[in-house]
Amino acid sequence: MNEKKITKRSSDFSQWYLDVVSSAELAEYGAVKGTMVIRPYGYTIWEISQKVLNQKFKETGVENAYFPIFIPERLLNKEKNHIEGFSPEVAVVTYAGGKELDEKIIVRPTSETIIYESYSKWVHSYKDLPILINQWANVVRWELKTKPFIRTTEFLWQEGHTVHETEEKAEERALKMLGIYKDFSENYMAIPTIVGKKTESEKFAGALNTYTVEAMMQDGKALQYATSHNLGQNFSKAFDIKYLDRQNKEQYGWQTSWGLSTRSIGGLIMVHSDDLGLVLPPKMAPIQAIVTTISSKENEKEITDKANEIYRELEESGVRVKVDSGNLTPGEKFFKWEKKGVPIRIEIGKKEIDNKEAVCVTRANGNKTNISFTQISKIIPEMLDQIQNDIYEKALKKQNENMKTAKDWDDLVEKVSKGNFVLAFFCCEKNIEKQINEDTGITVRCIKQTDGKIKGICIKTGKETTNEVYFAKSY
Amino acid sequence: MNEKKITKRSSDFSQWYLDVVSSAELAEYGAVKGTMVIRPYGYTIWEISQKVLNQKFKETGVENAYFPIFIPERLLNKEKNHIEGFSPEVAVVTYAGGKELDEKIIVRPTSETIIYESYSKWVHSYKDLPILINQWANVVRWELKTKPFIRTTEFLWQEGHTVHETEEKAEERALKMLGIYKDFSENYMAIPTIVGKKTESEKFAGALNTYTVEAMMQDGKALQYATSHNLGQNFSKAFDIKYLDRQNKEQYGWQTSWGLSTRSIGGLIMVHSDDLGLVLPPKMAPIQAIVTTISSKENEKEITDKANEIYRELEESGVRVKVDSGNLTPGEKFFKWEKKGVPIRIEIGKKEIDNKEAVCVTRANGNKTNISFTQISKIIPEMLDQIQNDIYEKALKKQNENMKTAKDWDDLVEKVSKGNFVLAFFCCEKNIEKQINEDTGITVRCIKQTDGKIKGICIKTGKETTNEVYFAKSY
Repeated sequence: MNEKKITKRSSDFSQWYLDVVSSAELAEYGAVKGTMVIRPYGYTIWEISQKVLNQKFKETGVENAYFPIFIPERLLNKEKNHIEGFSPEVAVVTYAGGKELDEKIIVRPTSETIIYESYSKWVHSYKDLPILINQWANVVRWELKTKPFIRTTEFLWQEGHTVHETEEKAEERALKMLGIYKDFSENYMAIPTIVGKKTESEKFAGALNTYTVEAMMQDGKALQYATSHNLGQNFSKAFDIKYLDRQNKEQYGWQTSWGLSTRSIGGLIMVHSDDLGLVLPPKMAPIQAIVTTISSKENEKEITDKANEIYRELEESGVRVKVDSGNLTPGEKFFKWEKKGVPIRIEIGKKEIDNKEAVCVTRANGNKTNISFTQISKIIPEMLDQIQNDIYEKALKKQNENMKTAKDWDDLVEKVSKGNFVLAFFCCEKNIEKQINEDTGITVRCIKQTDGKIKGICIKTGKETTNEVYFAKSY
Repeated sequence: MNEKKITKRSSDFSQWYLDVVSSAELAEYGAVKGTMVIRPYGYTIWEISQKVLNQKFKETGVENAYFPIFIPERLLNKEKNHIEGFSPEVAVVTYAGGKELDEKIIVRPTSETIIYESYSKWVHSYKDLPILINQWANVVRWELKTKPFIRTTEFLWQEGHTVHETEEKAEERALKMLGIYKDFSENYMAIPTIVGKKTESEKFAGALNTYTVEAMMQDGKALQYATSHNLGQNFSKAFDIKYLDRQNKEQYGWQTSWGLSTRSIGGLIMVHSDDLGLVLPPKMAPIQAIVTTISSKENEKEITDKANEIYRELEESGVRVKVDSGNLTPGEKFFKWEKKGVPIRIEIGKKEIDNKEAVCVTRANGNKTNISFTQISKIIPEMLDQIQNDIYEKALKKQNENMKTAKDWDDLVEKVSKGNFVLAFFCCEKNIEKQINEDTGITVRCIKQTDGKIKGICIKTGKETTNEVYFAKSY
């Protein structure tokens, strides 16, 4: 057990984050700089994400597959913007099986190129469309500054890749997947999201449009953890993905790609946790309730039996539950499960046995409730629903409080510097956006989804525009 | 749809295998030589394997985690036998993020070294033991001669890694996991197995003992697709995995590792399939029953409605079922699903509607049965159980018929060359085993699990030995 004290958010947010990750035993660094070991407790959160998303993907007709991690250099080079975007951060295999290789091999930073090489062989007719495939995989992007879950040299994600008959169908798919990510964020991770289109300078290398899912962390910075791209025909032209349409005419396919990564776990941690450690919404918690015994010599067996009985009842009610009947002191036990963010702690000791009711403590707000033993398996599931809801509402309130407007550019810079998002009209010109970022570190997170009819004045240039955007600092 | 004819097993077994893989749309080669694209139909078989194994692992206390794909060269070098075993086949990253790297990075061929680096930090006391962790991952081994699923440069697997207090507990764990693999093979993949200990020359690089799961393919060759290693203290000493025992004395941990790979899918294909294409045991089949409509202008709607009704009933009974009401001719439809190895085809046409019964065809043996519409959801699940059983029995019969004994060495060589396994006493001396392999291509698959009391005469040297082994050619 890691006995290290957790740094306060107010004194050093970045160190607080690292302390929460480490004290909850979620992850640690690997031996190669910037790689990450995802420990069982952290990995279970990823498995829960996989289960939820697989189900949602499947409902829209998506199937899973697996494509190679190795991409020959010539393939990565096929789409001009794509290679420009990714070449600075790729890892390259030059030597294998005891020999220098004739052609360099890229360890996938993303799989558009290797997957579309296959698609060009699979797509012949409109009858082969749509292709709706997803893969769960590891990808590698060489990063200089790393942080567990947030930015690592290797990370896990899912990447979906589709081909459609028409531009409209591709756009519809890109937005559908954006909707799934938003739903997952809000209704499972309890993270209120900001979704919208990326500006030209922030979009995916090779995409027509990139839609993003972003959230406000407790330090007021933005974290992007899922994106959905309408790729248009950029890749289908580069990779020759052609089909005969319903009029027997040759067409290039219309494509999308979309992904959510282990970064989402970083967001989950940074949105909900507190100075005592990890806080998890029940739907994402590996353990939703921990039954802790409070030792008492005279009632030892009775206490353990009752703890096990409650365990069985809760498990039958579909609660992810564990018993801690170990030898630690009650204080040590409470501290241990608090740091791990278990939503409800159920205490069973002599007093509880005598009163025929358990003390139930909610991790997120510290509230204590006495629940009669006979009611526990009915009430705990209801409490979990309530906690899920409360945690979301708390995060939403925080986000609303820190979502500002600004009267002019200086006001905007000041507000963003103080940890706010600012919603303002912006011309979205590439050079101006670049200059803003260089001067202030502020970025445009995304363009708000509107009907595009309302015009406003760009807060930086004074030009008329329909683009209303979210300004923030970001991870 | 791939209209290519499938080569007959009797004319070219190797080409037959490739034809089955390709015509069932299970997999194809990737762009880098020896890598593999696992297509959705093939990947679903892997997902079924994952689901079954995850459940079985979990029941024995194993948790999933994820460790980095990148291993610094110095770590791989720590265990002498291990690096000697793997160095000829590793892929090496020498260049990343636009720069030559100071230290070479190995793409994991297996993860003992990177995982045990973490374990050395996690293990301090006997209270931290056992450690029971598994990961699902991709690994890379540079191979010259490749074949889809059987031998690919990158493959998917699970690798479990445990640490225990005593040698006995490690041995017990290694055998427990062997038991799980055997159970999975026989009761899910319907593959009768040959399990036992590897000889000194065939064991895992760095292990004390290696236990293997092998099976006989239809060409009489052996395929190894799962192994379980008792690592003793070889790695704990190299990686300094030490703990204070119950007497407060420092000890090195006792370890195991065990893995099953996508190679198992190769075995599944080669054991059961026939000259018409893939044959799958129902428990491993992505689609267990296909409802095919036989078009008839006058009854079109009635036929489709009935097909959909049967689909819903079977889905409710827990059958993985699909409807094919497409425009292909009945013959084309039958051919399509036959090649994909769907265990039961349910035909619905005008005649079936008139008779109120469906024609149900079993893929494995071609048997046709008429089943009344009202009985279908009851009878199909029973048929699937029966088919699962029949497929196993058929494979077992074949294995028994080709399991021979030999009167002398020449007889053994002749029998193995004709596609048999031969069970014989063997001294297991390293040099002799090596010589046999060089001279004949025959290998010792494993040492039969016995009580070690029965002595016999080594078929090659005439020396007395207790080792009874399986000789065979192998993949």
